[in-house]
Amino acid sequence: MGFKYTEVESTIISYLEKGLLKPGDRLPSLRKLSVTLGVSLSTVNQAYLNLEKQGLIEARPRSGYYVLSYPNHQLDYPKSPQTDFTPRTFKRKDLILEVLNVLGNEQLLPLGIIAPHPSLLPLKELNRAMRSVLQENRAEILNYEKVEGNFLLRKQISFEYLDIIPSLNPEDMLITNGAMEALSLAVRTLTRPGDNVLIQSPTYFCFLQFLENYGLRAIEIPSNPKRGINPKDVREALDRFEVKACIFSANFNNPDGSLTTEEQKKEIVALLAQKEVPLIEDDVSGDIYFGVHRPKAFKTYDQKGLVVYCSSFSKTLCPGYRVGWILPGRFYKKVYELKATTSVSSTTLCQLALAEYFKNNSYTKNLKKLNKLIELQMKNILVAINKYFPKGTKATSPQGGSVLWLELPLQIDSILFFQKALELGISIVPGNIFSTQDRFKNFIRISCNGLWNKEVENGIARLGQLAYELIN
Amino acid sequence: MGFKYTEVESTIISYLEKGLLKPGDRLPSLRKLSVTLGVSLSTVNQAYLNLEKQGLIEARPRSGYYVLSYPNHQLDYPKSPQTDFTPRTFKRKDLILEVLNVLGNEQLLPLGIIAPHPSLLPLKELNRAMRSVLQENRAEILNYEKVEGNFLLRKQISFEYLDIIPSLNPEDMLITNGAMEALSLAVRTLTRPGDNVLIQSPTYFCFLQFLENYGLRAIEIPSNPKRGINPKDVREALDRFEVKACIFSANFNNPDGSLTTEEQKKEIVALLAQKEVPLIEDDVSGDIYFGVHRPKAFKTYDQKGLVVYCSSFSKTLCPGYRVGWILPGRFYKKVYELKATTSVSSTTLCQLALAEYFKNNSYTKNLKKLNKLIELQMKNILVAINKYFPKGTKATSPQGGSVLWLELPLQIDSILFFQKALELGISIVPGNIFSTQDRFKNFIRISCNGLWNKEVENGIARLGQLAYELIN
Repeated sequence: MGFKYTEVESTIISYLEKGLLKPGDRLPSLRKLSVTLGVSLSTVNQAYLNLEKQGLIEARPRSGYYVLSYPNHQLDYPKSPQTDFTPRTFKRKDLILEVLNVLGNEQLLPLGIIAPHPSLLPLKELNRAMRSVLQENRAEILNYEKVEGNFLLRKQISFEYLDIIPSLNPEDMLITNGAMEALSLAVRTLTRPGDNVLIQSPTYFCFLQFLENYGLRAIEIPSNPKRGINPKDVREALDRFEVKACIFSANFNNPDGSLTTEEQKKEIVALLAQKEVPLIEDDVSGDIYFGVHRPKAFKTYDQKGLVVYCSSFSKTLCPGYRVGWILPGRFYKKVYELKATTSVSSTTLCQLALAEYFKNNSYTKNLKKLNKLIELQMKNILVAINKYFPKGTKATSPQGGSVLWLELPLQIDSILFFQKALELGISIVPGNIFSTQDRFKNFIRISCNGLWNKEVENGIARLGQLAYELIN
Repeated sequence: MGFKYTEVESTIISYLEKGLLKPGDRLPSLRKLSVTLGVSLSTVNQAYLNLEKQGLIEARPRSGYYVLSYPNHQLDYPKSPQTDFTPRTFKRKDLILEVLNVLGNEQLLPLGIIAPHPSLLPLKELNRAMRSVLQENRAEILNYEKVEGNFLLRKQISFEYLDIIPSLNPEDMLITNGAMEALSLAVRTLTRPGDNVLIQSPTYFCFLQFLENYGLRAIEIPSNPKRGINPKDVREALDRFEVKACIFSANFNNPDGSLTTEEQKKEIVALLAQKEVPLIEDDVSGDIYFGVHRPKAFKTYDQKGLVVYCSSFSKTLCPGYRVGWILPGRFYKKVYELKATTSVSSTTLCQLALAEYFKNNSYTKNLKKLNKLIELQMKNILVAINKYFPKGTKATSPQGGSVLWLELPLQIDSILFFQKALELGISIVPGNIFSTQDRFKNFIRISCNGLWNKEVENGIARLGQLAYELIN
């Protein structure tokens, strides 16, 4: 009788979660653990092999198993921004457009755009799924899909995220053209020109484009680069202003990588529920986690249908398929109507192929592999930054997501830095486009596509040198 | 020397255009024409075969060649609506949503949704194109396409439409998620809540959804079911009101099938240019023409970049690919920015496959075939309507597009008709959703997917019986 190997596995995982085992620690030998737990050697062996496959531990030749560790660096964390709740209209459009134009340029070293390197995506599996859909030569694949999207795909996504969003139902979901369409539908559903909207500071620059294009006023809530949004700040803003909606990203906020804790998420959702203020949640980075468990979402704690959850598979599977999804809660009808008059429906073929992919492949397994590579690249970039950048450079070391947020010495203007980097053939994103104010003018965002190599290291070295030049 | 067969072909086509040869007329015998034109028999034969392939003439056994004729009917044309320029806000959303929900229902006889029958689409050719794109297993197919869309595809579309839009340039174009996204981007680019917008009456119900969702005021310009928009009406509306934009469909307006003549198009564009008022042009039906030449567009006559041209391949090739295009003229930058924050870019794979399709296939040949079938179905439906519907029923007999616009006896309420038809398993669209006013409450729209068969005839018969019942 006794333990099965999955139970051994969970035991180790619980040690990791409680911090009883830390990165770099040696695990008990097979023999020792088999005696301690009273199970066979092969059971322990099977468990260790599984943990290795998940990227949690690594075998070192002639030395045993170790908790996976990454290179270390000694960079300080950037500080949390000051609190300043003044509602603001602003002009960032032209600057953002200038940056956007650069991000798509394939000639540049891509430290600007957020997308996994194509070689790390499951191309063969996706193409196989696509071919199998084509094989049947069914004329329906040329037809419009339903406004709300393919039912099978919605069902499979529901299964996949049931742990994160309890009682997730395919009927509550619409498929969108990436998370961008989901977010755009949400903002257009919930706001009218002149409305106040709470955003994080720093926040994804695209939200600033929404606000500026739709004539909204931004109230910035400081995002602590480690702990994300403080419920106290949300409470104060709600008390002082009439707020129509919030746009928050709890899991690995772009650009600061902050993770708003579960307790804070719960408290913020409760606060908003009291005042019936809707929350637009961007969770595209939630699947890119380096810990054992995927973090939950604001939506996890939503009792009143006030959280409009937006996500996609663009950061983990297939950016070019343009498949995202939205859970509009109580705003379903309005979102449905706007989707019908924005794009009618999303591409039929991509939805069918993705449904087929989910049927035959493990999305989670794909994530584990990808996330491990992103984490590895991130840690290596941090070591390189520590080596090549001037003293006083600070950087985040997030627990997930695919961006690093760098605070450069105060003399450096990030827009100039962006332009000079461009001349060096490198794209990065200047801090100024992540806020309505100039508070991040000496910050830059560096994104990680999962590939660590000489070219990237050289790029970081050149950026470091540029930073030195700009100081003098 | 003498005539080549293409010259014989153009001679016949010019006779058709001038009305010297009419549907049903017998063409000169091969021998006679060969003598008249002084060319060989085989030259004339080649020309006739080509004209037959294009669906312009038909061979009748032991009788010779005839100009293709369709069955006749004796239905009157509906009258032009009254002029009433009052700017209006309105509530049609819920009714439109009710209709939209029905249109997607595959259990119903589809006389409501506008989409060619899947069996008439070039499935094999498109699948071949898609497979050839997949074959290379290039990782790039999973990546984001440019915001403005794939360059090759834009180039091929430019070639295809050079006759319609002189000096069309791939750089002036963005690929969108169907014409719907193009139109939605255009409206959001050009208007702010409270603005006056000129629309046709009747107009595509989706434009009413735009106006209602964005808080715009509609000024309705009567659409003559034969000749479309009268420039005089546009002039008067522009004189009386501050107009921010027009949304017009010159070619086979949905639902009345009207064709605004080239002279009128030219005059309207000139009028708008004088006052610098932008025109959003929906040309999705322009490719579905039954005459010899495709009609031109408002955009053809646009000198000042004020016409924002929107179209797609959803009515002719592949609705489910969601590929449309927009020529934003002088509003390019704003449209680009909105596209980037609405869906980032359109599906990479579908754009690549469509570019591949255009490279290897004749889009025009595909159109000729499809258009001939739609025209044939349309004429047959009209004959059936004449047979099965009550006296006093009027109907359009458009020169293109895929909808028929029926005026039923005044006692009939089209919403009740819509609901009762639904009970009979048939989807149609009630006239009331094509205007801000109740002026079309005894009208219905019937769409033609290109398939004429017993099932469709029975459907029309049942609708006719329903009309009789609703009169009593």
